[in-house]
Amino acid sequence: MKIGIDLGGTNIAGGLVSDSGELIYKTSIPTVTESEEALLSAIVKVIETVRENAGAAEITAVGIGVPGHADDKTGIVVYCNNIPFVNTDLAGYVKEKTGLPCTIGNDANAAALAEVLFGSAKEFNNAVMITLGTGIGAGIIIDNRIFSGVNGAAGELGHICLYPEGMECNCGRRGCFELYGSATALVRQTREAMEKNPESKMWKLAGSLDKVNGKTAFDAMREGDKAGEDVVAQYVRYLATGVLDVINFLCPEAIIFGGGVAKEGETLLSPIREIVKKECYSDYGKQTKFLTAELGNDAGIIGAAFLGE
Amino acid sequence: MKIGIDLGGTNIAGGLVSDSGELIYKTSIPTVTESEEALLSAIVKVIETVRENAGAAEITAVGIGVPGHADDKTGIVVYCNNIPFVNTDLAGYVKEKTGLPCTIGNDANAAALAEVLFGSAKEFNNAVMITLGTGIGAGIIIDNRIFSGVNGAAGELGHICLYPEGMECNCGRRGCFELYGSATALVRQTREAMEKNPESKMWKLAGSLDKVNGKTAFDAMREGDKAGEDVVAQYVRYLATGVLDVINFLCPEAIIFGGGVAKEGETLLSPIREIVKKECYSDYGKQTKFLTAELGNDAGIIGAAFLGE
Repeated sequence: MKIGIDLGGTNIAGGLVSDSGELIYKTSIPTVTESEEALLSAIVKVIETVRENAGAAEITAVGIGVPGHADDKTGIVVYCNNIPFVNTDLAGYVKEKTGLPCTIGNDANAAALAEVLFGSAKEFNNAVMITLGTGIGAGIIIDNRIFSGVNGAAGELGHICLYPEGMECNCGRRGCFELYGSATALVRQTREAMEKNPESKMWKLAGSLDKVNGKTAFDAMREGDKAGEDVVAQYVRYLATGVLDVINFLCPEAIIFGGGVAKEGETLLSPIREIVKKECYSDYGKQTKFLTAELGNDAGIIGAAFLGE
Repeated sequence: MKIGIDLGGTNIAGGLVSDSGELIYKTSIPTVTESEEALLSAIVKVIETVRENAGAAEITAVGIGVPGHADDKTGIVVYCNNIPFVNTDLAGYVKEKTGLPCTIGNDANAAALAEVLFGSAKEFNNAVMITLGTGIGAGIIIDNRIFSGVNGAAGELGHICLYPEGMECNCGRRGCFELYGSATALVRQTREAMEKNPESKMWKLAGSLDKVNGKTAFDAMREGDKAGEDVVAQYVRYLATGVLDVINFLCPEAIIFGGGVAKEGETLLSPIREIVKKECYSDYGKQTKFLTAELGNDAGIIGAAFLGE
């Protein structure tokens, strides 16, 4: 049995995970953000709660998925946007307090690992998971293990460049993929289209500009709205451009889409597939499969439990 | 002892390679392109010549680097631009004729493997080698092995996109990296600058537009020519844009530059390093090292010998 912790900006979720990837018990407490120390204690508290619910089963490992830059080799959380960890020796602290071996990793990497080991990509050994959310997160799995690069920061697919002279990104580059392909970007693109098309059904569907979400344009398209259809087509084109870079460079067995937008399923995947088929470098033999994530929010806990494998 | 074959558009080079990567004997014959059969025979002839020069040493493997799409898993050469192989079972043929185990792979991948195992990146286990030539070739090495993706075509870094609305590429996309970052592109950019700057020293250095090469702009810059300096600065900017995509996505321990342009060494690497330092996603901890290839033309033979490892 293993313990997986999914450390989020809102909640610390923890679970007991069997060696075959089943989530047997799950618990969650709000994330405390007052101080590094308070957050470290809260994480250990979640681990102890899970451990108490493991009965007589032996716990062989703890893994923690972190929403930021976590160096899996040193166990140190380098930096997180919404959490008071800066160069924090998270793995060292947990080991000391619990006596259990502990491995940390990026949360997007943990989710990718779970989908390849036990989720929608379980028949594959290498895959890239792309999570469409506030930004674009990605996890690279090679030979059923996370590839985290020289300092644990690999997989920042949101910061490959789509437009060298495009919008400024807070990472220091211009025209980054996530400025065009994230759920946030889709919402922005939807709002812009609404402002240009006062007759669009998107107004009725969303109610107002500030209630627009990642579904608005897709829903409008399904109701035959031209402006909605155009937003989706342009968004799909942006995603396909980034995905083609991944395929031409890495050619993984599968690309798994996660995040709310991925719930559109084939409505999203089918037009991406079409563009990729037309424009990818090699159309020989086996091709990269496009999948949507299966494990939902549990992927973070399940994948975290296997970070040390 | 192993045999490595570097199959090129002009020559078939073969060598005897020790288990520690030393090139002990080397031979070469012109590439015959009349027919698939003639080329297959010529390759076997080179293998036999190398074998005869191995003395009493046992040959444990043959590897062949191919200038095109080679599927390492099936041993089939899918397609090459300048060579009459289409879905050719090269590994099968060589095994049958020589009785030796044979593995094939892409030639850029083979060169990358050699540089990581025995060349400039030998202290690293994962790296990307970028060859600046007619196009841009790349090899991805992870855990000291080639990562060739689902169908052997991974590493087509020349066909990640720099400008979605840019120049048309013969791969089906627009604005591909190699249209801006290859040696061919540098020559084009140099010529364009010469036409706009009749006073540039590049005219004297090259003699005429059709004698321009990848060194012209660099040489002019060294002589204080402003137009030459601008060509180099823009070319470096293009390279840095592609390299930043590799770093943000894969974060390898090293990026090795190969091909003629890479002979500029620090003149090329130092400004790329500067841009990358400023714009890369994570500046924490260890960073990707920039190196130039060390093994030159021998990399193809040496790497090929280790394709089966």
